[in-house]
Amino acid sequence: MNRQQIRAFLDAVRQGNITPEAAQERLFQVLSQQPYEDLGFARVDHHRNARQGFPEVVFGQGKTPVQIASIAARIAAAGHTLLVTRASSDAHEAVLKELPDAVYHETARCITRDLHATPRGRGTILIAAAGTADLPVAEEAAVTADVMGNTVDRLYDVGVAGLHRLLKEHARLGAARVVIVAAGMEGALPSVIGGLVDVPVVAVPTSVGYGASFGGLTALLAMLNSCATGISVVNIDNGFGAAAIASSINHLD
Amino acid sequence: MNRQQIRAFLDAVRQGNITPEAAQERLFQVLSQQPYEDLGFARVDHHRNARQGFPEVVFGQGKTPVQIASIAARIAAAGHTLLVTRASSDAHEAVLKELPDAVYHETARCITRDLHATPRGRGTILIAAAGTADLPVAEEAAVTADVMGNTVDRLYDVGVAGLHRLLKEHARLGAARVVIVAAGMEGALPSVIGGLVDVPVVAVPTSVGYGASFGGLTALLAMLNSCATGISVVNIDNGFGAAAIASSINHLD
Amino acid sequence: MNRQQIRAFLDAVRQGNITPEAAQERLFQVLSQQPYEDLGFARVDHHRNARQGFPEVVFGQGKTPVQIASIAARIAAAGHTLLVTRASSDAHEAVLKELPDAVYHETARCITRDLHATPRGRGTILIAAAGTADLPVAEEAAVTADVMGNTVDRLYDVGVAGLHRLLKEHARLGAARVVIVAAGMEGALPSVIGGLVDVPVVAVPTSVGYGASFGGLTALLAMLNSCATGISVVNIDNGFGAAAIASSINHLD
Amino acid sequence: MNRQQIRAFLDAVRQGNITPEAAQERLFQVLSQQPYEDLGFARVDHHRNARQGFPEVVFGQGKTPVQIASIAARIAAAGHTLLVTRASSDAHEAVLKELPDAVYHETARCITRDLHATPRGRGTILIAAAGTADLPVAEEAAVTADVMGNTVDRLYDVGVAGLHRLLKEHARLGAARVVIVAAGMEGALPSVIGGLVDVPVVAVPTSVGYGASFGGLTALLAMLNSCATGISVVNIDNGFGAAAIASSINHLD
Amino acid sequence: MNRQQIRAFLDAVRQGNITPEAAQERLFQVLSQQPYEDLGFARVDHHRNARQGFPEVVFGQGKTPVQIASIAARIAAAGHTLLVTRASSDAHEAVLKELPDAVYHETARCITRDLHATPRGRGTILIAAAGTADLPVAEEAAVTADVMGNTVDRLYDVGVAGLHRLLKEHARLGAARVVIVAAGMEGALPSVIGGLVDVPVVAVPTSVGYGASFGGLTALLAMLNSCATGISVVNIDNGFGAAAIASSINHLD
Amino acid sequence: MNRQQIRAFLDAVRQGNITPEAAQERLFQVLSQQPYEDLGFARVDHHRNARQGFPEVVFGQGKTPVQIASIAARIAAAGHTLLVTRASSDAHEAVLKELPDAVYHETARCITRDLHATPRGRGTILIAAAGTADLPVAEEAAVTADVMGNTVDRLYDVGVAGLHRLLKEHARLGAARVVIVAAGMEGALPSVIGGLVDVPVVAVPTSVGYGASFGGLTALLAMLNSCATGISVVNIDNGFGAAAIASSINHLD
Amino acid sequence: MNRQQIRAFLDAVRQGNITPEAAQERLFQVLSQQPYEDLGFARVDHHRNARQGFPEVVFGQGKTPVQIASIAARIAAAGHTLLVTRASSDAHEAVLKELPDAVYHETARCITRDLHATPRGRGTILIAAAGTADLPVAEEAAVTADVMGNTVDRLYDVGVAGLHRLLKEHARLGAARVVIVAAGMEGALPSVIGGLVDVPVVAVPTSVGYGASFGGLTALLAMLNSCATGISVVNIDNGFGAAAIASSINHLD
Amino acid sequence: MNRQQIRAFLDAVRQGNITPEAAQERLFQVLSQQPYEDLGFARVDHHRNARQGFPEVVFGQGKTPVQIASIAARIAAAGHTLLVTRASSDAHEAVLKELPDAVYHETARCITRDLHATPRGRGTILIAAAGTADLPVAEEAAVTADVMGNTVDRLYDVGVAGLHRLLKEHARLGAARVVIVAAGMEGALPSVIGGLVDVPVVAVPTSVGYGASFGGLTALLAMLNSCATGISVVNIDNGFGAAAIASSINHLD
Repeated sequence: MNRQQIRAFLDAVRQGNITPEAAQERLFQVLSQQPYEDLGFARVDHHRNARQGFPEVVFGQGKTPVQIASIAARIAAAGHTLLVTRASSDAHEAVLKELPDAVYHETARCITRDLHATPRGRGTILIAAAGTADLPVAEEAAVTADVMGNTVDRLYDVGVAGLHRLLKEHARLGAARVVIVAAGMEGALPSVIGGLVDVPVVAVPTSVGYGASFGGLTALLAMLNSCATGISVVNIDNGFGAAAIASSINHLD
Repeated sequence: MNRQQIRAFLDAVRQGNITPEAAQERLFQVLSQQPYEDLGFARVDHHRNARQGFPEVVFGQGKTPVQIASIAARIAAAGHTLLVTRASSDAHEAVLKELPDAVYHETARCITRDLHATPRGRGTILIAAAGTADLPVAEEAAVTADVMGNTVDRLYDVGVAGLHRLLKEHARLGAARVVIVAAGMEGALPSVIGGLVDVPVVAVPTSVGYGASFGGLTALLAMLNSCATGISVVNIDNGFGAAAIASSINHLD
Repeated sequence: MNRQQIRAFLDAVRQGNITPEAAQERLFQVLSQQPYEDLGFARVDHHRNARQGFPEVVFGQGKTPVQIASIAARIAAAGHTLLVTRASSDAHEAVLKELPDAVYHETARCITRDLHATPRGRGTILIAAAGTADLPVAEEAAVTADVMGNTVDRLYDVGVAGLHRLLKEHARLGAARVVIVAAGMEGALPSVIGGLVDVPVVAVPTSVGYGASFGGLTALLAMLNSCATGISVVNIDNGFGAAAIASSINHLD
Repeated sequence: MNRQQIRAFLDAVRQGNITPEAAQERLFQVLSQQPYEDLGFARVDHHRNARQGFPEVVFGQGKTPVQIASIAARIAAAGHTLLVTRASSDAHEAVLKELPDAVYHETARCITRDLHATPRGRGTILIAAAGTADLPVAEEAAVTADVMGNTVDRLYDVGVAGLHRLLKEHARLGAARVVIVAAGMEGALPSVIGGLVDVPVVAVPTSVGYGASFGGLTALLAMLNSCATGISVVNIDNGFGAAAIASSINHLD
Repeated sequence: MNRQQIRAFLDAVRQGNITPEAAQERLFQVLSQQPYEDLGFARVDHHRNARQGFPEVVFGQGKTPVQIASIAARIAAAGHTLLVTRASSDAHEAVLKELPDAVYHETARCITRDLHATPRGRGTILIAAAGTADLPVAEEAAVTADVMGNTVDRLYDVGVAGLHRLLKEHARLGAARVVIVAAGMEGALPSVIGGLVDVPVVAVPTSVGYGASFGGLTALLAMLNSCATGISVVNIDNGFGAAAIASSINHLD
Repeated sequence: MNRQQIRAFLDAVRQGNITPEAAQERLFQVLSQQPYEDLGFARVDHHRNARQGFPEVVFGQGKTPVQIASIAARIAAAGHTLLVTRASSDAHEAVLKELPDAVYHETARCITRDLHATPRGRGTILIAAAGTADLPVAEEAAVTADVMGNTVDRLYDVGVAGLHRLLKEHARLGAARVVIVAAGMEGALPSVIGGLVDVPVVAVPTSVGYGASFGGLTALLAMLNSCATGISVVNIDNGFGAAAIASSINHLD
Repeated sequence: MNRQQIRAFLDAVRQGNITPEAAQERLFQVLSQQPYEDLGFARVDHHRNARQGFPEVVFGQGKTPVQIASIAARIAAAGHTLLVTRASSDAHEAVLKELPDAVYHETARCITRDLHATPRGRGTILIAAAGTADLPVAEEAAVTADVMGNTVDRLYDVGVAGLHRLLKEHARLGAARVVIVAAGMEGALPSVIGGLVDVPVVAVPTSVGYGASFGGLTALLAMLNSCATGISVVNIDNGFGAAAIASSINHLD
Repeated sequence: MNRQQIRAFLDAVRQGNITPEAAQERLFQVLSQQPYEDLGFARVDHHRNARQGFPEVVFGQGKTPVQIASIAARIAAAGHTLLVTRASSDAHEAVLKELPDAVYHETARCITRDLHATPRGRGTILIAAAGTADLPVAEEAAVTADVMGNTVDRLYDVGVAGLHRLLKEHARLGAARVVIVAAGMEGALPSVIGGLVDVPVVAVPTSVGYGASFGGLTALLAMLNSCATGISVVNIDNGFGAAAIASSINHLD
């Protein structure tokens, strides 16, 4: 249980929305959990929800479908929401055998399962993407933000070379509590958006480009050197990380 | 006037805390300002406060004391709070001739002048620094956060090689609404702090180090690759930028 | 004599605007020039004007004032327009002793002497600069473009973080035949301008910035990866080179 | 309609070469177009022709054949010339189903369809390539320049190690209005050509080479540091971009 | 025979644990070995055991299964312990034909055969790994350390983002004579462990990560810049090298 | 008190070499020390000796002489051995005012004070340097190793281009328990020495060189890729770090 | 005909070893050759032999088997020796159809055909390789040197970690007129060999290695920074280039 | 005595050009020399002449004038020719006190003293430099080649942007036995010269340039990737190294 879930639980107890027996059982289950569970090849961290506000997320890259499925099963058994990133459809097949209601998001390459709905954040996270090729990263951010309890607004293909496409969406930019901007190539979009809004902007460089884009390095460097204020940056293609920090911001009281 | 200032102004009007004449005069002054003022070598942006929540900040590096003083004078004349970063004491001397109450922060290398107190953010910004040599960057962040209307808590010399120094301060970490972490060399501190808190962490790599630290590049790369979630990164030595985004987060309703 | 000068000369002959004696003398002077003159430490290229449309330009960096003055004297003696770039005021002092009418442009760090006015190009070269610190590079471009026979329009401090400053100048952008854009830090300005105009854009990355700007490398990479079309790039801080290609474009019939 | 097309249209109206009805219909069609069309995964920019002088070009890399075909169909439906770069023959197959007269250029990896002939530029674009392996990039430039309305002259396999092959073609170099030079490895060819002509040279580094060529980085750096004037550079392997700027230069009045 | 083996042999002679005939035969065999054996494509170094304390190890990468098998056969024929690193299961198949008792370690990708047990080192080598994906490197180190005569303790998935998992294992850290730490991404684990122990720490950066991890470069740089003392570093993914130096330390008297 | 000092102390008590009163006083002093002392700009770590085997070492670079002197005074007051690295002679002047018996090592740029002699390690640390210019780094290692309680043997100017100078010293190489090798330029010396000894080798790249040595990067990379086994590497110019790990190895029982 | 061939031809004429008719025919054939032959995709340079001492060599990488075969046919038709580097066995199949006596060298990946034996150079080219994995590069050098008319001595697997393997071959090193050294990883072998011989050494870095070897960059940098004199360097894996310069040296009178 | 000197000595003995006593004395002096002399901070290598063909050369950079003077004195005392590179005029002053006939070459920054004239090489070394700023490197090569016993021909300021300056000197290029080419910026000159001559070319990249020349890295990479054959490369600004290998080539029989 993270901070918000603890408060919700105590409110429910105080208002009698949960029976004493159920409350006792729920508390016992939480308290009796080991802080982590050793699977030999991994230590599943069951206290991450309490410490960090969201259960452990499985980074699928470099793990076999079987490993992913077995970690996913342990997370689900602990009553936690499931999120697997960088997952192939093969991994999804394997997870389905353990958890038949696990959902696969193809563009985002994520597997999710919404057992305990995460409490909603206060505002909207707007996710802007410069071009069509940035969609996998933007969608990883969108799915992550969604499963972490946030309302998401998508604003795609608004690169700076056609500025009118962005300026027409000024209202949606203004309505967001946090903005995530995914862009490859020269990575200029966060600078432009950063100059238009007064809320935090999280920039995600993508590996989209060729030649001297060096797998996203150019976009990364450009974003770190942005002349606009209020912009911070995450790793190349790290849609998940951008959403995690945006969600953390959006869940501040 | 930024969002918070507009609300405060309207509340004051509604509650009669400001006379109709004063209110009218104030509104007129704000509305009659040009969006920017052309000094020949610079266009001072007088609408930045409205658009971005804080007036234009002067980046002192590469500007002469005379240029800095003349931009500072225009900002003050527009009734805005003054912040000059990367400023030498010579620049301060020059500014003093225009604005006798301008203050110089030596370690931070900043000049400030608090004409209109910026409305306070909701919580505390904790600023952690790994070593003594990181203090100039940490202090640039602290002064910036202060002048932008935030309560600041400083936690210095808590590098990961002596973990007990950090773990003893768990309470202060837990009390922050946003955490800024400045570190050079291997840049590991944000990863450790990121695993201990559930609020946003803004990491600032510093150029502290030698040899293969490559002027802060190693710390920057390490922070971008952090295995902890909830961490975003700004440019090397960019204490100002870290504070700006932390303040933007801390001023969210 | 470059192409335009040859035509002008022949027109003058045809229309009797030059006496036969003067014409003969002028032609003889041109034809009797050695293709280059050996000063021991340098071979001054006297045919560059014919081959490339502008006399040899002296790159001052790494040459002593005495060397610069002696090369300048040879160029002037050949009846050519003088341009020295990357020149200190000391170099100017030395040149003045040889050529008392040589002019020093302080911000641009250039020395010029306009003996034979270069024929004018067809349109205007607009020079945009993102920030105040980019002015030395922009001015090197402006002085170069001027001495090479171009009308120059300066548009300074129009960085992308305050887009309204740029959008207000749409008319001036539209009136140019070529646009030069100088920007440091994230180097995003050429992408935005490139999306607004249909004429060639020459982007000049500047070494303005700190940390991960790596002395202009970030701006250079960003410009090379621009998502806008019609943009080409020159070396970091190479205001001269940008102006040379812009002038070459502007002098096309 | 770009500038030249507007003028041609008005001339046709003035001279009665177009019936009033057709003119009205044509103008209505143009004016009633949305500035862009939202396909979900892309916003097709229908005003790019007016703003930039050529319709939106589809960058095929990273798009599925189906996506390419559907964007191509929208562009054709708007009456625009089609150019798809970095296209596989599979993509061509998919486009053929929508547009049976689309042509595939194998070496250049481009798809074109010439519905409305773009007005011709004033001169010739010469495309020089250092070696056989640079041909795909040179041909991408050639096809692009052709479809954008330019006369193209190809000068292939003229690398600097066998200078006589280049020097023999002096006449063709001298006849060009713009020169594009594609070279990999040490990227020296633009410097040599730049010293021989007085028109703008656009240099395209290619990824041809091995070892310390680092995928074209060496050629890119060499071209940026050219000691010849009048040279600007585009991204590695960016034949399209080189042709776009060359065409923009060649279409100047 | 390395130093320890020579002493053990002489002790056995002195104590009569070996017959004079066997002792003579053994010594003759050792002394009559050529220092190296030329296979045409390789010179198998038979004196490495004497010079360096362990027989030549076969680096399997870039060698064919047949080449590996033939080198392995020569090493075994010389009576030496076999270790092949970076070996595919195909290579194992080939070796099995020569040496039917050769064992394959799948995660570690190593082939071993323990003919003459290497004398044991004095203490334990603890091998810590930050995450599941670092296991291949950690296991290469573990198998190498084992075959080189060391007691190995494995401590896996103890990355710094969940510090409690590491701190609970303080006793095991304290019991080691040498510690090997394998970590990718930001490579922070050696710094934290280095601050907790007073024995030598050998850090192995792994290529685990994506984007700005640059194939392990970030972890490598971070480890080289560690603020903790007592840490040295080997090449990216070099589990073998880390174990070799740890074993060399552990076998010091 | 580190491990060895605790044992020595207990032995002295057991054998009556220390009076009960003195023993009680000494133990009390140690136990009553705060784990660290906060000087405002630094937290002096008084438990480092217990945790890591040697008291906190002051890294002088980037600290003012006054700061260094004040930290040095606190370390001495706690009864600890003093070592300041990267110290100017100015810093030594300042320290002398607090600690008149502090010694300055000019080539090594270190300040030391040997209050409590550190217990000796078991063997000799050999320090090899490739060229004369590597001496400052080698001497930093030598002074550090000395003050940390090790016998040091210096072997200077034995670069690989004159192999006979090294091969003649085979006996000294063979007598060492640990070898430190400092080399700049191509950094080949550790590979050669690593092939000659069977004890651990700690390689220190130095910034000696020019051009493509890139401030020691070439030597660093070469050492990380050494084909010899038993070699680990520390940061460029980090003579201190090399000695610290060598001392840690040399003090193993 | 290169210099040596011209002399040999004239000698033959003078001594009557060739009939007047044959001599006339041969001279006519040579003189009537076009300087290059245009195949559309390539300009085969038939005068390279005269200008550079060896006919044009075909760099096979990036060319189709058909292209290679057709260029090879033109070279053979001109009576020139054939060398194709970086050739697959497919390319050999294609060449065989045109030239049935073309030979394929598998390890070297070269195709050769020795129509006119190139005159022999004066001495021996020794080719040293550090490890088994460097053989493809060493063999490319060996085949090239052979076909260019040189006696070749091969010295393989003599890396610096086992120095005795190299020192035993001192006589062969001393007998060479030029030495080529191929090495990957830390690239130290040229420095050691350079210190042992007084003839020119050509160093070839290879891409052998992993992790921080960066595809041969480390070996390249190490070789450029060699502390031994008399060493020059060619591109990574450029066995051909090393042999070409060695042959050029070996053919000096 | 190197190879050539040994032969000359034996010839003199055989022909009676040296008295038996003088010959005996000379041989004794040579044979009684220690292989190296230990000055504490340096081991002067007295056998280098025999092993490598030229006495030890002093690399002045990073040595104090006193150190240089004392090494120079030992070399002179051994009867060897003196060459100090990278020497300041202060170093020359110090050397003059020991060796009053030592000469300083200002542009080359070298100190020489020609006690025993080195035997002449067979041909001429041509040294070409692209621009005026490359002269210090070219002169270091020229002085080195001269003192090592070579005839030197200088060809300066012949950069590729003005190709006619180079092509006019075809005869001098053709007359050389070895060519050294020094160039900064894009480093294209070796490729062009390499295509014109059939003798070995040694390319020296210089640090001349700015921006993306990265201190000579661009020129270095370009030269390594040269499309011309017969070119090898030395370190940036390494005029000495280029001359040493050129001299080694020129002294081959």
